[in-house]
Amino acid sequence: MDKQKKETLLVALGGNALIRKGQSGEASEQMDNLKIPISQIARLSKKYNIIITHGNGPQVGNLLLQQECCNDIAKMPLEILVAQTQGQLGYMIESTLDTELMTLGIYDKHFVSLISYVVVDENDPAFLDPSKPIGPVYTEEQADKVPYPTKKTAKGYRRVVVSPRPVTIVEKAEIKKLIDMDFIVICCGGGGIPVIREGRAFNGVDAVIDKDLASARLAEEVGVDIFMIASDVEGAAINFGTDRQKFLGKITTDQAKQYMNEGQFPPGSMKPKVEAAIEFIEKSGHMAVIGSIMDIEKAVSGNAGTIILGQK
Amino acid sequence: MDKQKKETLLVALGGNALIRKGQSGEASEQMDNLKIPISQIARLSKKYNIIITHGNGPQVGNLLLQQECCNDIAKMPLEILVAQTQGQLGYMIESTLDTELMTLGIYDKHFVSLISYVVVDENDPAFLDPSKPIGPVYTEEQADKVPYPTKKTAKGYRRVVVSPRPVTIVEKAEIKKLIDMDFIVICCGGGGIPVIREGRAFNGVDAVIDKDLASARLAEEVGVDIFMIASDVEGAAINFGTDRQKFLGKITTDQAKQYMNEGQFPPGSMKPKVEAAIEFIEKSGHMAVIGSIMDIEKAVSGNAGTIILGQK
Repeated sequence: MDKQKKETLLVALGGNALIRKGQSGEASEQMDNLKIPISQIARLSKKYNIIITHGNGPQVGNLLLQQECCNDIAKMPLEILVAQTQGQLGYMIESTLDTELMTLGIYDKHFVSLISYVVVDENDPAFLDPSKPIGPVYTEEQADKVPYPTKKTAKGYRRVVVSPRPVTIVEKAEIKKLIDMDFIVICCGGGGIPVIREGRAFNGVDAVIDKDLASARLAEEVGVDIFMIASDVEGAAINFGTDRQKFLGKITTDQAKQYMNEGQFPPGSMKPKVEAAIEFIEKSGHMAVIGSIMDIEKAVSGNAGTIILGQK
Repeated sequence: MDKQKKETLLVALGGNALIRKGQSGEASEQMDNLKIPISQIARLSKKYNIIITHGNGPQVGNLLLQQECCNDIAKMPLEILVAQTQGQLGYMIESTLDTELMTLGIYDKHFVSLISYVVVDENDPAFLDPSKPIGPVYTEEQADKVPYPTKKTAKGYRRVVVSPRPVTIVEKAEIKKLIDMDFIVICCGGGGIPVIREGRAFNGVDAVIDKDLASARLAEEVGVDIFMIASDVEGAAINFGTDRQKFLGKITTDQAKQYMNEGQFPPGSMKPKVEAAIEFIEKSGHMAVIGSIMDIEKAVSGNAGTIILGQK
């Protein structure tokens, strides 16, 4: 009798979920914030193969600020800072998972946290228009003096960087093989380290990839069944921030596209999450859910968050 | 007919080898410096299973300096900085290896760079006597003001941290399984992220583990056949830095211990390498070699570096 094949669940954790509003980002705070989402993922690992990806917005912003402060030390390009956050958050997630699995009495589960790099297209139009704001807020006067492009945002002037679309996850074959062997895999941190394939080499580029789009690409490439985007909001909403705000329980990709065209989902926050969910569903035919890190188990079982389904 | 089992080679790369004397540590310099050692390891991967570990001295020192500069950002404890360097150097090594393998026409080799943490004993006497110097050099006046222990070293006053002995590599089962599946594994960067096992949890500690001792421990735990410590010197020497300096070609562990007792190997540089080599050989019965990152292939085949053998 064949053992029934386990379904594979990918949970993309928001980097903001690790540093809550009003927190300064101490290591102990970040570790504490991981307990609730990771304990749920530990329990889900009994039923599902698990891939965990994660954002790194506040963490990479802090590293940028620290290197800006210190003129005596060689400054690293953005892709190296992304790599550093993969180390930091990979460790924080893995050791929290280790603790939570032991608490459940699970001592023999294999899991690894992998450095991941992601190929982007050197002809991506994003390279002509750096648009993703990162790091500190400047006054107009300060912005004129910094040695990189800035744009005026709602918060003030900020550095903007190129954010190309993910083409392929370099480690996809390795990740697939590890999942097939029942490993839990933590990977694609911060959207992955962006690289361009040039002849027989991968070369890092000064850019950041949206972590939800990279997670969607990985989910397609390794054959994930359920893709969950977990952040600090309980789901997608229409009329967000108004009296008529309404959370969406279950929608189709067509409805999601219509709301997106109406401008219901703010760029830089909910919009890329919905785009990533649609992209995954259209390529895989499977389900995606956007929900809170506090409700991962409920969302995966269809009882919380915004469930997005194909047209069937 | 059984395919003969490949031997496993572990190469521990010195963190100093990535930032050469007189270099400022730009990312591009570190990547360039990796080409010669990694191209040799890529060729050796045809014959051997490969594990690569690495140091992080200059890199973790830079992160420490950067966070000292910047008082507005939450400072991370040392184990998180070690994790950050595992991300940075894991990426640099992995992508250089990717390029070098493609240059050899090898496109189907699996390899991963893993976050690794290493258990230390909370009763290790090292916790009573922080002794490993890291980070910047201070004047006596500055040293009095910094909020952590400092000691006078040959270079001046420096922060000293606890450097406990590695007890076990947490990911040893995963690493063994990956090697058995013919993966190249990059791991245990900077000696691993130090953790203490407390009940059902692993908790990080503000310490650093010697990377050669951690590599020796890993080599024993996963059954490595050849352990190479590759740095910026061509091997161990007696009467080092004098007219009578003599490099050692081939020695036994007994000879190595005798030289060590004579104080031939400086602490903080050659001594821990020789100690790590002896520890590995005595537990495994296999060979260790201490040599230059420029001569990895020659050293592994017994034609360069200091070969250390058991007493048989």
